Amino acid sequence: MQKTKTVYFCAGWFTDKQNRAYRQAMQAIKDNPTIDVENSYIPLQHQYKGLRVDEHPELLQDREWATATYNGDRVGISTSDMLLAIYVPEEEDVGMGVELGMASSLGKYIMVVVPDEDFGKSINLMSWGIADNFIKLSELAKYNFNRPGFDFYNGGVY
Amino acid sequence: MQKTKTVYFCAGWFTDKQNRAYRQAMQAIKDNPTIDVENSYIPLQHQYKGLRVDEHPELLQDREWATATYNGDRVGISTSDMLLAIYVPEEEDVGMGVELGMASSLGKYIMVVVPDEDFGKSINLMSWGIADNFIKLSELAKYNFNRPGFDFYNGGVY
Amino acid sequence: MQKTKTVYFCAGWFTDKQNRAYRQAMQAIKDNPTIDVENSYIPLQHQYKGLRVDEHPELLQDREWATATYNGDRVGISTSDMLLAIYVPEEEDVGMGVELGMASSLGKYIMVVVPDEDFGKSINLMSWGIADNFIKLSELAKYNFNRPGFDFYNGGVY
Amino acid sequence: MQKTKTVYFCAGWFTDKQNRAYRQAMQAIKDNPTIDVENSYIPLQHQYKGLRVDEHPELLQDREWATATYNGDRVGISTSDMLLAIYVPEEEDVGMGVELGMASSLGKYIMVVVPDEDFGKSINLMSWGIADNFIKLSELAKYNFNRPGFDFYNGGVY
Amino acid sequence: MQKTKTVYFCAGWFTDKQNRAYRQAMQAIKDNPTIDVENSYIPLQHQYKGLRVDEHPELLQDREWATATYNGDRVGISTSDMLLAIYVPEEEDVGMGVELGMASSLGKYIMVVVPDEDFGKSINLMSWGIADNFIKLSELAKYNFNRPGFDFYNGGVY
Amino acid sequence: MQKTKTVYFCAGWFTDKQNRAYRQAMQAIKDNPTIDVENSYIPLQHQYKGLRVDEHPELLQDREWATATYNGDRVGISTSDMLLAIYVPEEEDVGMGVELGMASSLGKYIMVVVPDEDFGKSINLMSWGIADNFIKLSELAKYNFNRPGFDFYNGGVY
Repeated sequence: MQKTKTVYFCAGWFTDKQNRAYRQAMQAIKDNPTIDVENSYIPLQHQYKGLRVDEHPELLQDREWATATYNGDRVGISTSDMLLAIYVPEEEDVGMGVELGMASSLGKYIMVVVPDEDFGKSINLMSWGIADNFIKLSELAKYNFNRPGFDFYNGGVY
Repeated sequence: MQKTKTVYFCAGWFTDKQNRAYRQAMQAIKDNPTIDVENSYIPLQHQYKGLRVDEHPELLQDREWATATYNGDRVGISTSDMLLAIYVPEEEDVGMGVELGMASSLGKYIMVVVPDEDFGKSINLMSWGIADNFIKLSELAKYNFNRPGFDFYNGGVY
Repeated sequence: MQKTKTVYFCAGWFTDKQNRAYRQAMQAIKDNPTIDVENSYIPLQHQYKGLRVDEHPELLQDREWATATYNGDRVGISTSDMLLAIYVPEEEDVGMGVELGMASSLGKYIMVVVPDEDFGKSINLMSWGIADNFIKLSELAKYNFNRPGFDFYNGGVY
Repeated sequence: MQKTKTVYFCAGWFTDKQNRAYRQAMQAIKDNPTIDVENSYIPLQHQYKGLRVDEHPELLQDREWATATYNGDRVGISTSDMLLAIYVPEEEDVGMGVELGMASSLGKYIMVVVPDEDFGKSINLMSWGIADNFIKLSELAKYNFNRPGFDFYNGGVY
Repeated sequence: MQKTKTVYFCAGWFTDKQNRAYRQAMQAIKDNPTIDVENSYIPLQHQYKGLRVDEHPELLQDREWATATYNGDRVGISTSDMLLAIYVPEEEDVGMGVELGMASSLGKYIMVVVPDEDFGKSINLMSWGIADNFIKLSELAKYNFNRPGFDFYNGGVY
Repeated sequence: MQKTKTVYFCAGWFTDKQNRAYRQAMQAIKDNPTIDVENSYIPLQHQYKGLRVDEHPELLQDREWATATYNGDRVGISTSDMLLAIYVPEEEDVGMGVELGMASSLGKYIMVVVPDEDFGKSINLMSWGIADNFIKLSELAKYNFNRPGFDFYNGGVY
């Protein structure tokens, strides 16, 4: 019987490049028979009380809203089988770093996915060290997440 | 008897603003009687085999060097009493995020220090949620780290 | 394909109210298609060597029996997908608290279920803070545990 | 050189018996040369924004206040050397249980102190199993916390 | 529906006795309907870059190879449902001990399997204490790993 | 002010070679001004109820005695500042491995000390990977444990 794994979908949506990688990765995990997309955690789909910050920017100053959204992401990591980071070397952000650290401490498998054209570019040393494996975006649809393995990043650090 | 705490000094040194905050924070912890600077971990002082990457850029492609430097920082966090993050809101980086996540999982106290002129500016939601406290850089020299407490960041998130 | 989750069934059986909530919750998880009751851990079904303390009260003074029963519950938590606490606000006990703390440290999802007539009554601050979500007993049969989320308790603390 | 340890002072203040044990234990740790009371964490001294709930009962319904107070206690546990539980067998509460579970996961030494007249009475199985040692209140002033050891509770469970 | 669990197959292959137990245990988990052998982690099948140390003994001096192989095993433990130790009392080794410690800290179920003719012989105290259960090799094919429990080792320690 | 660190003294006492290394290491930590030997945890000094197994071999079959001794060692690790392993390459044992794994999960610094004449001999891969640093026995008396660092073992694995 084919098993499927759930992922915490860790990705930025702030630049064109990030958005393109986001969409391609989302399609790839839908195509991957070892991923259970339906029960995976996509942070953008978990806005506290269904309120969108682009329509309610005042929420960003609200401690209750921030506490709930932070905890939503924390729970997303702890209840998923692994963390999938869509990682654009020149556009990394600190929030992804926190999530990598949290996932590692819970023993969650950390797979870093880099767009093909950026694969091999230098990445931050701490991301290099805390992840369990690194693949190109074009490999995501076919990776067998039921048999996850360790490998180094095929590129340098800064 | 006055006790002193060791810190993992988590700070960037890539921009003028980061360098200025770095120097001011370093002076402040020397002035703070509750900090033991001598036995604290300053990542820049722990280069594997004493080799400096600015003089040996080829090291950045070397897996042994990267593994040792990553583990040096990991050990720095686990053997220090707390993590002190010198945090410039517009210049956060992913490596600091990983270190915040690692420190949190070991139960290390996380103090985020923001330059006075930036205090209150929005910061990343995950940094907002994982830190234990936030102070201005001008408060660092006098904070009593023997009686650490929790507080929210006095500013918004993004 | 419908997935199912196993639970550590954390509930008291010392008062009428607890017993009523216990029975209703047990029926609800049998009715819930996202729960795997057969492979869930029900502490009452795991008595060391099949000896019942009501028939053998001397066991309560026996260190081997106590060690084995304590470890049985510990293993029940670590091998279940989540912790389900049947929580009666006026009749909380310290053992449930220990189990909440253990589950949290392992990253297990913590769902607190409160009888409908008690939902909203004040609960202990530490239970309030360590749980991931709170629902009414009448909602238990239909909650989708494949898509668990975070929310605050809709009530105060003491 | 005499070292001293800080404690998270885990105790109830809801009944006469708890209050008596609270005061006796507080005096004992002041008398104990291996305890650093000044830098220990006494929850009652850490009220968010200095607001007292007995004067502001509306705080108990306030999510920001509850989040901050819960996190204050969490930080108190993680930044203290050990957890000291003043434990009255017939008056245990769930909050103490959560704190025992949190302390255990961080590897903090857990010492349970029972009033002399209650020592030996049955206690909850989970408290019995998660603590590292148990002493009488009259022994607290002289216990050497620089050489902490393990022992069973000298009494039964329920 | 029958669920299946993945295991980290922790076993030596250095002596005749270990090899015999290895083969028997491998057959037993293939026969056990509650084990998913296909997606389990067998260390011998995970040699970094597919290089075998018996053909390339120089790898044993190579830090990159050792780092990758160590991390492969670490990931094998963290991504499996439990640790299965094939344990020969007179031929224990330190590597198995490290793996037992790592598995325990992640809350993985630890089942120790002892060859029938050795079951009852004294084992190391730390293995005795950190494992969750102990069975004979002849019981392995029928154990229901969907309902794992705790028990003591039926034998002494040294 | 000179600080001192406590150690969990992890060493075998089963062979002549182990006993010689044990005595030399014990002398070295007494000579090392950064070690607090008085408050360190020496397993041989913590026999449950002061009963010696060489005089009472029946204890090795006693579950209460074994549980208490195992937990004594567990508490010794969690309450010490670091783990010091006196490591003889050809005489490693599984109990040391479990202790290495436990120490690592609590973020304790792990220093492996190898007798000078054995330094460089191959060691088990898992010990190689989980330790933070490796020194010769002759270096132990002068190592500054207030400034612990990471380094690879200067030798191969098996």
